[in-house]
Amino acid sequence: MMDANALREIVDTVIREMGAKSDISLLDARILSEKVREKAKAMGVNAVVAISNKAGHPILVECMDDSFIASYDIAVNKAFTVVSLKMSTSALKPLSQPGGSLYGIQFTNNGKIVIFGGGEPLCNSKGEIIGGLGVSGGTEEQDTALAEYGKLVFEKGSK
Amino acid sequence: MMDANALREIVDTVIREMGAKSDISLLDARILSEKVREKAKAMGVNAVVAISNKAGHPILVECMDDSFIASYDIAVNKAFTVVSLKMSTSALKPLSQPGGSLYGIQFTNNGKIVIFGGGEPLCNSKGEIIGGLGVSGGTEEQDTALAEYGKLVFEKGSK
Amino acid sequence: MMDANALREIVDTVIREMGAKSDISLLDARILSEKVREKAKAMGVNAVVAISNKAGHPILVECMDDSFIASYDIAVNKAFTVVSLKMSTSALKPLSQPGGSLYGIQFTNNGKIVIFGGGEPLCNSKGEIIGGLGVSGGTEEQDTALAEYGKLVFEKGSK
Amino acid sequence: MMDANALREIVDTVIREMGAKSDISLLDARILSEKVREKAKAMGVNAVVAISNKAGHPILVECMDDSFIASYDIAVNKAFTVVSLKMSTSALKPLSQPGGSLYGIQFTNNGKIVIFGGGEPLCNSKGEIIGGLGVSGGTEEQDTALAEYGKLVFEKGSK
Repeated sequence: MMDANALREIVDTVIREMGAKSDISLLDARILSEKVREKAKAMGVNAVVAISNKAGHPILVECMDDSFIASYDIAVNKAFTVVSLKMSTSALKPLSQPGGSLYGIQFTNNGKIVIFGGGEPLCNSKGEIIGGLGVSGGTEEQDTALAEYGKLVFEKGSK
Repeated sequence: MMDANALREIVDTVIREMGAKSDISLLDARILSEKVREKAKAMGVNAVVAISNKAGHPILVECMDDSFIASYDIAVNKAFTVVSLKMSTSALKPLSQPGGSLYGIQFTNNGKIVIFGGGEPLCNSKGEIIGGLGVSGGTEEQDTALAEYGKLVFEKGSK
Repeated sequence: MMDANALREIVDTVIREMGAKSDISLLDARILSEKVREKAKAMGVNAVVAISNKAGHPILVECMDDSFIASYDIAVNKAFTVVSLKMSTSALKPLSQPGGSLYGIQFTNNGKIVIFGGGEPLCNSKGEIIGGLGVSGGTEEQDTALAEYGKLVFEKGSK
Repeated sequence: MMDANALREIVDTVIREMGAKSDISLLDARILSEKVREKAKAMGVNAVVAISNKAGHPILVECMDDSFIASYDIAVNKAFTVVSLKMSTSALKPLSQPGGSLYGIQFTNNGKIVIFGGGEPLCNSKGEIIGGLGVSGGTEEQDTALAEYGKLVFEKGSK
């Protein structure tokens, strides 16, 4: 017969596991994108913000007025890259330089791998990647700062 | 000498012309998409809503939770089609059937022309196309109804 | 205070929900593919069998010796189609004929939508789509029969 | 008159030549992939294993659970690269760096040439290339080790 403590432990585990989101929702994405856009506006950047689910499929893309036309594809592809390789595009950057261990990875996936800053994976409270954030519109430093800010905001909200 | 009525008419026209937006903003798009999503939810449809600017570039894409994976490309391409050809995808449908006057147009633009309902051009108060709306996720009838609803809502708001 | 019966009911529900697989594993896919290949062999068909996860990404592709070169893409795309549109390719077939409500859908997703038989969605014990099966190599009738057989075998195994 | 030794030599050569496979079979590929997956598991890598025939067409792709989404294309393209250029991707790596003799080859074949480790050609007992192995999922060092291990296992089995 199972005693009360053992049962309690099982129930707690189940609750914790079920409490962690397994994929990002459109509502989560809209709240996150708004935060990133506000920050971009404060920085004077017209950004495109793209958010993918854990499968790498975009679920939200928002282009701030007067953002670069090219930024749409870049932001969407950053959001794909971080989920499909499970690392930020900043982390991928040194690996994919000439002479780096993954130099050439930028050509292997139909042009969908971005190798400069501005993409961050988004984790749930268990540390599992459940989405990706891609930001494009400013300098690389600005895009990186915006994506890191977004990751922070998202993951604080997931706890 | 110009009489008061003629002057009045000119001034009214100028005001109307200046009041008419020349392109859709992200804010307009977000407001519109929210309306379309609410309607979709009421209809039991998990839709992808895409809105392009007058250049045909998507400026907002929102995927309702559990929408079809395929709907992303379809909605984005509907929003492109209506701006790039200046007609709804429903209007294009009969023209692009085998034997129709534009049969073959579905092959000319790298797969970006959609020839079934769910795409509507968005006009300003002067009747100029300033954006495109693409909806995908339900039956063709549902997508068409949602896009027509969105067009109506948008254009009422533009007056 | 919660009584024993109410608790029992909750625990049972959780167990049932957690027991249903949320995505297809490589092992599931390999077992299924073997069954389909055996059936194909018995029918004298050299088939390509492709299985995608619930995100539409292929997780297993097996090409029987002497299968058609073209069948690789066809099978992979069938496995994508059924997940991304949540219906079999046989069901999509009539809708995508000239004059049909979705005629043109075969052009909207970068050539990844297949509109003839041989693709079936794979469901878990709760009826949720957790993968897709694409078979190509025989006549349409043979491919359809093989995919339907595979769906049956898979779903019987999921109960 | 031909002496016995000369005849013996001819017969031996014929037997060896006839014994040598001229192309890789799905069964060979499945056995090889299983070995590579077992090794990957032991190394803690969730790998995608792709095997192409001597024409460069993939005949088997297996994605271990929780492997990188991006690894599917990378593994398949590695298996293509080694057959289409008749060298390992490790050997191609230095040649395709900026300044290298083949710099630029990564752009010539629609993104199908991979220039970092993890791809090995597979030879029959006569040393002829009859297939290609691509592994993706770990670091470059891990992928390279896995592909070299797979080549060794395959070629030992071919003797």
